[in-house]
Amino acid sequence: MRLLLLSNSTAPGHGYLEHAREEIADFLDGTRRLAFVPYAGADHDGYTAQVTRALAPLGVEVTGVHTGSRPAEVVADADAVFVGGGNSFRLLSALHHHGLVDAIRARVGAGAGYMGSSAGTNMACPTLRTTNDMPIVQPPTFDALHLVPFQINPHYLDPAPDSSHMGETRAQRIAEFHQENDVAVLGLREGTWLRATDDGLTLGGIEAGAVLFERGREPVEHRPGADLTRLLRTPAVFDSADR
Amino acid sequence: MRLLLLSNSTAPGHGYLEHAREEIADFLDGTRRLAFVPYAGADHDGYTAQVTRALAPLGVEVTGVHTGSRPAEVVADADAVFVGGGNSFRLLSALHHHGLVDAIRARVGAGAGYMGSSAGTNMACPTLRTTNDMPIVQPPTFDALHLVPFQINPHYLDPAPDSSHMGETRAQRIAEFHQENDVAVLGLREGTWLRATDDGLTLGGIEAGAVLFERGREPVEHRPGADLTRLLRTPAVFDSADR
Repeated sequence: MRLLLLSNSTAPGHGYLEHAREEIADFLDGTRRLAFVPYAGADHDGYTAQVTRALAPLGVEVTGVHTGSRPAEVVADADAVFVGGGNSFRLLSALHHHGLVDAIRARVGAGAGYMGSSAGTNMACPTLRTTNDMPIVQPPTFDALHLVPFQINPHYLDPAPDSSHMGETRAQRIAEFHQENDVAVLGLREGTWLRATDDGLTLGGIEAGAVLFERGREPVEHRPGADLTRLLRTPAVFDSADR
Repeated sequence: MRLLLLSNSTAPGHGYLEHAREEIADFLDGTRRLAFVPYAGADHDGYTAQVTRALAPLGVEVTGVHTGSRPAEVVADADAVFVGGGNSFRLLSALHHHGLVDAIRARVGAGAGYMGSSAGTNMACPTLRTTNDMPIVQPPTFDALHLVPFQINPHYLDPAPDSSHMGETRAQRIAEFHQENDVAVLGLREGTWLRATDDGLTLGGIEAGAVLFERGREPVEHRPGADLTRLLRTPAVFDSADR
């Protein structure tokens, strides 16, 4: 299993995927055919064109899974899969509708690389339960690709110290998650990412790093280069609240 | 039908429900028994005690629906229902689990007042599709109480002009909602509320007011006192995207 899970696709002052260019080039080294999943967005052709342009310098042939008659076949023919960001609920609905959950799990299990950004990173988790997105459509289930056994919160945001807004902070939302589920949540700040193999998990990206939230423990800060392999072995218990 | 739908329960520098004290007193005038629904929170007893304290000056007898053997019976015996804020997904799951969707609709249809704050306001809409909350648990359906035929976004927040965060703004999230659904969305800024009867809908609260989002139209600002009755007659079409 080879994964590259980006918190976000675009950093301020940079072009699409540019902030992670070297990491992506390294990850896709040797990839000829990449299946792009545009379903988190609304304009599938436009989104696929954007990804095609961004990955052109790497010599990768990008095919939108929506362009064939069967999206799962495009995945089956690819050396790597990239699931782009957008709305996680729309994305998960489409993955299930098009039979892509099984197709992607099978292809990645057989050695194809999986790259995700934002909503696409969320999909690599057991469920979408730690997304930040608005539930604009109702997926048949919250169960996602389960390529890793823990949850990720992309675009992780620290509380704004001078805010008078009374909505929950991100950390409070994750605390609510832990009232109901006993599963580790990694808050990936923008500009950071995870690289995973079957037996290793490493944090990459900018110095801001990530925060690990586990039920009943204080949050722990991690910096780029941190070895998070133990998260690949952690048991996950959803709906564990005794209420 | 009598509704009071608050964007938020607590304003900075004020106690719980204090910012809307006069409006709540007017709304609950004549109410003897109020059924409180604490399921958006994790501590049902503590939450009910907080509401009991806040409403004590009004001479209202508060009963948490979780304290009886059948929550729906507590609702059936009440003159008014108050659904408190917290996590909308947890709340909607519990409403369905305890048979409260039908019970509350029946009781409010028979003349009991319905008061909601934040997640409780979201529940008065056809669905929870415009919540800001994290989907920490999976409800059996996104369908909610449908006491009004349009959607509300509580805690509506304007884009921060100097933010470098790349996550979607609230307005962008509502635009994504309109890519998939043809339903009006009222963004209720904190400190504002709606009062509704069968034939009237009025915005109340602080000067900041609310923003009305409709598919294919520019957002429209509304100030306290605005008559929004036409929203009670607007058709709602969910999952209208042609994809």
